[in-house]
Amino acid sequence: MAGGASADIGRLLAVQGLNAAYVEAIDDGRFEAWPDFFMDDGIYRVTTAENVEQGLPLSVIYTTSRAMLRDRVKALREANIYEAQRYRHVIGPSRLESADADGLRVRTSFMVARIMHTGETMLFATGRYLDRVVVDDAGTARFAEKVVVLDSRLIDTLLAIPL
Amino acid sequence: MAGGASADIGRLLAVQGLNAAYVEAIDDGRFEAWPDFFMDDGIYRVTTAENVEQGLPLSVIYTTSRAMLRDRVKALREANIYEAQRYRHVIGPSRLESADADGLRVRTSFMVARIMHTGETMLFATGRYLDRVVVDDAGTARFAEKVVVLDSRLIDTLLAIPL
Amino acid sequence: MAGGASADIGRLLAVQGLNAAYVEAIDDGRFEAWPDFFMDDGIYRVTTAENVEQGLPLSVIYTTSRAMLRDRVKALREANIYEAQRYRHVIGPSRLESADADGLRVRTSFMVARIMHTGETMLFATGRYLDRVVVDDAGTARFAEKVVVLDSRLIDTLLAIPL
Repeated sequence: MAGGASADIGRLLAVQGLNAAYVEAIDDGRFEAWPDFFMDDGIYRVTTAENVEQGLPLSVIYTTSRAMLRDRVKALREANIYEAQRYRHVIGPSRLESADADGLRVRTSFMVARIMHTGETMLFATGRYLDRVVVDDAGTARFAEKVVVLDSRLIDTLLAIPL
Repeated sequence: MAGGASADIGRLLAVQGLNAAYVEAIDDGRFEAWPDFFMDDGIYRVTTAENVEQGLPLSVIYTTSRAMLRDRVKALREANIYEAQRYRHVIGPSRLESADADGLRVRTSFMVARIMHTGETMLFATGRYLDRVVVDDAGTARFAEKVVVLDSRLIDTLLAIPL
Repeated sequence: MAGGASADIGRLLAVQGLNAAYVEAIDDGRFEAWPDFFMDDGIYRVTTAENVEQGLPLSVIYTTSRAMLRDRVKALREANIYEAQRYRHVIGPSRLESADADGLRVRTSFMVARIMHTGETMLFATGRYLDRVVVDDAGTARFAEKVVVLDSRLIDTLLAIPL
């Protein structure tokens, strides 16, 4: 927020680019690419704003490895429930909260629209990503942790979908 | 828009970070932090696109100091009308219109979703921020002026809410 | 996405600024400015995600010059169908896919809200921009090609509107 150092700018844009590529893969239905945005032992957690406010450690989804995400994708493909709709994420600018040896902590707001096969479009989910991002020596940014905090407590249909 | 000079990039990202932090505070319900995004004599004005187009100086809200914003927050807390819903702003990239001794003039589009206690989510408000931002010697960016131009003329329920 | 080189950052922000200015012009109803965001022989194409997925070259709109866009604007003004509503685009961060002699290939997600004269607001369209952008010697960025891929197949009312 203070702007300035070009290293900071580069990191911020790297993180923003990571999130942009991440939501693109989901919106394109390229679910097999989804786990690759995470580190091998990356955490993916979905919870609600209500849980966070009340300090509850409850999660709707909690996975702790890329392998677990691959299993989810496989299950999704077998359930075959994606044919009927499309999703569109729009994310706001990412904001760097802190940076240390564990990576960059970043926050990003999002809205997701759902587009039915009939063409009907609705606002489907909103929330924020609380991410910890690690950039490796080759310059590739990945999620060490991605916490999806949903604003709504209505989460049933959300369960299956990468967010 | 022409890209290039890294001073410009730094300023643009500082302003974008300011707006990102600003909407986060609102969406988190941290209203007490809201006035701090403004200068002491900062202007906060809410108007409609219709008013702007017709050249009317009408405002829905017009405050001229951080102290007035603090009073608004106090009134909001006493009215206690925030418990039942949540808000989520998503903003587009900020665009620098000009920069001079009075600060940076910047424009940013936004959408706001409202999430009811029941979980129901709706598109609540859309519009643009016309900001004048001043960065102080310590590198902190603040609003010298923030004009919220709402696209809709339906503004009754919007009145109380920081936008 | 890897972040780093400040030339890349400058280009990315130039493209992002171009798209921000582009949607502002549309949302302001400044349609006469719309063709100027394109090169003389710039391509503007609107299609659907369904067409793209099936590899169909079908377009809802396909124009190949700035002059054709000017004709469209003229027709829009004569049809005079814009008075009753307003639009608001919010775009996500642009992502640079590649850069070569033909320009920068960039992808940007968007949502468009429609605000009726009554004030009623709805989510109107979602999709992605697949752009090829050329920056000229004076530093001005323009679309050599803009492909608007709509998520919905319901496109009738979309036809007339610059997207």
